[in-house]
Amino acid sequence: MTEASTNGFLYEPSILDKIKLEDWPKTEFKTAISITTPGEGLKMRPLHRDDHQKGFLTNLAQLTAVGDISEKEFHDAFDKMKATPNTYYVTVIEDLNKGVIIGSATLLMEQKFIHNCGKRGRIEDVVVSDEYRGKQLGKILLTALVSLSKHLDCYKISLDCRDQMIPFYETLGFVKEPNNGNFMVIRF
Amino acid sequence: MTEASTNGFLYEPSILDKIKLEDWPKTEFKTAISITTPGEGLKMRPLHRDDHQKGFLTNLAQLTAVGDISEKEFHDAFDKMKATPNTYYVTVIEDLNKGVIIGSATLLMEQKFIHNCGKRGRIEDVVVSDEYRGKQLGKILLTALVSLSKHLDCYKISLDCRDQMIPFYETLGFVKEPNNGNFMVIRF
Repeated sequence: MTEASTNGFLYEPSILDKIKLEDWPKTEFKTAISITTPGEGLKMRPLHRDDHQKGFLTNLAQLTAVGDISEKEFHDAFDKMKATPNTYYVTVIEDLNKGVIIGSATLLMEQKFIHNCGKRGRIEDVVVSDEYRGKQLGKILLTALVSLSKHLDCYKISLDCRDQMIPFYETLGFVKEPNNGNFMVIRF
Repeated sequence: MTEASTNGFLYEPSILDKIKLEDWPKTEFKTAISITTPGEGLKMRPLHRDDHQKGFLTNLAQLTAVGDISEKEFHDAFDKMKATPNTYYVTVIEDLNKGVIIGSATLLMEQKFIHNCGKRGRIEDVVVSDEYRGKQLGKILLTALVSLSKHLDCYKISLDCRDQMIPFYETLGFVKEPNNGNFMVIRF
């Protein structure tokens, strides 16, 4: 039994100690920071089963419609993700002084047959609280997840985004490839 | 223990009996066909653990680089997917007379917290053998996976694609939304 299976984290926290912002050196950061300490009084770590109480969903609602999710419903979704090995890397930033989640992003991993049974990563659901903008926390979260996907042997990592976000993701090394940059959707 | 856990299929085959092409009536099909019988002598079904021997990877190599994957490596990837509940719906079309896989596509399911702990589907790795073009098999595969994602309560289903494929996916109801149709990637 791994540590994460007993300690309430969605994935093993020590994975984040094994990666560095320098593993994906596309962006220079203003101040001396690390992945696990992305700012003074801030901590980056895997989502925890207690984070409903720390405002994880309140923060997520700054991104899109979340709905009124009870703690039990949160636990049900959390437990489903945790029962799905090597797939959900939901990562949060907590303001330790307030005990509140102020940012989060997800690395979703996919096992493939193509590319020698390779693995593909996806960035999903990136949000940093309005109050904490301008501290490069979005870039740090994204750099951490790109580094993590490299560490987990992904052959590529991708995302879909609105037009206005393209310049931001380009600073992190994401490319909209010629003739191959289309995202299409059906909403039910 | 479900039937699929003992019978060698990646997911429960009876799910495909519960959906119909008419569940997603965007496309008219030329001849009388169904999801599980997409043409004479053809069978649509979940990927099976024995499909390495039926040319699943040979067919997949018409899409992109697959590599030289041994039967053991195929089984390892298959077993990882099968140990990941409610996520990998790799679906194939077999030519029953030849005992060969001639088409495949994947529905990848993602558990979310947003949208009331909703589920999102993705279409991945769609390929139909050159020899079987013109029989609407790509459209039937895609219609099946869109219907399946509805059946599994997804709030949306998406894909990324090359420019030349946009008209094809539009016939199935996929939309490149204004200001929100960008796909970006980092390849390692």
